[in-house]
Amino acid sequence: MIDKERIAEVYRHIQDEICTALEALDGKARFEQEVWERDGGGGGRTRIIQNGTILEKGGVNFSAVHGKLPEVIKKSLGVDEDDFFATGVSIVIHPNHPHVPIIHMNIRYFELNEQIRWFGGGIDLTPHYIVEEDARYFHAQLKAVCDRHHPDFYRDFKAWADDYFFIKHRNETRGIGGVFYDKLTPLKTGLTYQQIFDFSCDLGHNFAPIYTELVNRHRHRDFSSEEKEWQLLRRGRYVEFNLVYDAGTKFGLETNGRVESILMSLPNQASWLYDFKTKPDSNEQHTLDLLRKGIDWA
Amino acid sequence: MIDKERIAEVYRHIQDEICTALEALDGKARFEQEVWERDGGGGGRTRIIQNGTILEKGGVNFSAVHGKLPEVIKKSLGVDEDDFFATGVSIVIHPNHPHVPIIHMNIRYFELNEQIRWFGGGIDLTPHYIVEEDARYFHAQLKAVCDRHHPDFYRDFKAWADDYFFIKHRNETRGIGGVFYDKLTPLKTGLTYQQIFDFSCDLGHNFAPIYTELVNRHRHRDFSSEEKEWQLLRRGRYVEFNLVYDAGTKFGLETNGRVESILMSLPNQASWLYDFKTKPDSNEQHTLDLLRKGIDWA
Repeated sequence: MIDKERIAEVYRHIQDEICTALEALDGKARFEQEVWERDGGGGGRTRIIQNGTILEKGGVNFSAVHGKLPEVIKKSLGVDEDDFFATGVSIVIHPNHPHVPIIHMNIRYFELNEQIRWFGGGIDLTPHYIVEEDARYFHAQLKAVCDRHHPDFYRDFKAWADDYFFIKHRNETRGIGGVFYDKLTPLKTGLTYQQIFDFSCDLGHNFAPIYTELVNRHRHRDFSSEEKEWQLLRRGRYVEFNLVYDAGTKFGLETNGRVESILMSLPNQASWLYDFKTKPDSNEQHTLDLLRKGIDWA
Repeated sequence: MIDKERIAEVYRHIQDEICTALEALDGKARFEQEVWERDGGGGGRTRIIQNGTILEKGGVNFSAVHGKLPEVIKKSLGVDEDDFFATGVSIVIHPNHPHVPIIHMNIRYFELNEQIRWFGGGIDLTPHYIVEEDARYFHAQLKAVCDRHHPDFYRDFKAWADDYFFIKHRNETRGIGGVFYDKLTPLKTGLTYQQIFDFSCDLGHNFAPIYTELVNRHRHRDFSSEEKEWQLLRRGRYVEFNLVYDAGTKFGLETNGRVESILMSLPNQASWLYDFKTKPDSNEQHTLDLLRKGIDWA
């Protein structure tokens, strides 16, 4: 049975692989790394890329932490076990170009007293302007990854992403979704832990090729100042989702996590305009029309 | 005994008075008003001023709503009563100038089944750069208002503001605080409802003169692009507080309130820079050093 050290090691390699690919994609900026240790046990490697030719702000973070679970988390998980181990890779990329999408990925593994074990994660895309061909490409790629591991994964995890990445107070999805899964076990999936782990790695290996394709489709397009303004407004929505709803952000802030690592998901600049209205039949309105659950992109 | 219609009427006049004073202060921009009605009963007047000579984005909102309390709110208040009435004036002003502070005010009255009744509210200041002389002036003015009504109000409500306007994950206060109070009743204060109401009106009448003085002290100063950048970073903190902690914002979003009115408190532009560090002995560092609870400004 695959053990936690091995999982952390492979996830660490996936961080390396993705950073190398994103630096090649950008062509100019380089990741800066901070190695940190956690008081209670373990640590991580925070890697930030900034002010690139296309990557304005991106974080590709690896961590492997362990120790005693805080009381508040035990309650929220409904468990009595104390000793936890958690490892994962977490990514958010904000491009400087309004026609290049924001992307987010997370793959993680969690263990309690070496008995309770599960995997979670996903990849989702937040285009400032939704291009239907891109959305179909993105979902087809995720479906291909899922289908290699389980016939139901894409259908189930696509629906889960629609529900999770939803800005309730705006009645709109954060972007075009993707896949999201949590607490996967052999009992729930019919797969072994090794097989679930392999699925998470397959997602990880496919992250950079998928994003590279989407960036290269649009990075050389011109854009107007109105399109740039729209990008900042959409980033405002991203901030709203992450600060109001995102479970990982909440968990991190409530447990006194490393604030700069947690909030690296926020963009360099965002904006809010009072009661901003899109023009009918505009690209902006077209995007809003597609920010809803249940669209069958694949 | 003062009744709810009268309270709403006086609060509505306070909205008028403040809008007139803020338009005079700005000299150029005018408030735009939207009158809205609530499905369950009542309504309000949202007034927004934008892109002025000094007021970049400000909202001065009045509402008087009534109806049946949603189940989720009854639970959070721990009450069984159904019929509620709530009226208040709520203000947030974001200036365009980094040396002019953000200000927030709220005065509100709440009633359940015409039996349970209380007042809440406060005024607090969020300077991008803390000027100690201004902080002393601001708190002295609030203390003078409080002292006219109750010898303990300033001490108690100043401490309450320090605790409330606190960004826990940053371990810093939102600004220099002010006064904050909630659920004030005759039993708790030894005052009559009329006297508590008079206190809230006194705060309301003093809002515009205090802010006018603070704006005029700094509006003609030059500022650098670095100071402007710092202003956007401080606004990022304001966004963090409002979306993560502010009770009114949470309440509004959870009860399907009018999103544009609730989130008018967010600035036009805000920014986040990964692991931004202030220079030692800089004005920025001086401000950070003063963003803590318990400073005796008055």
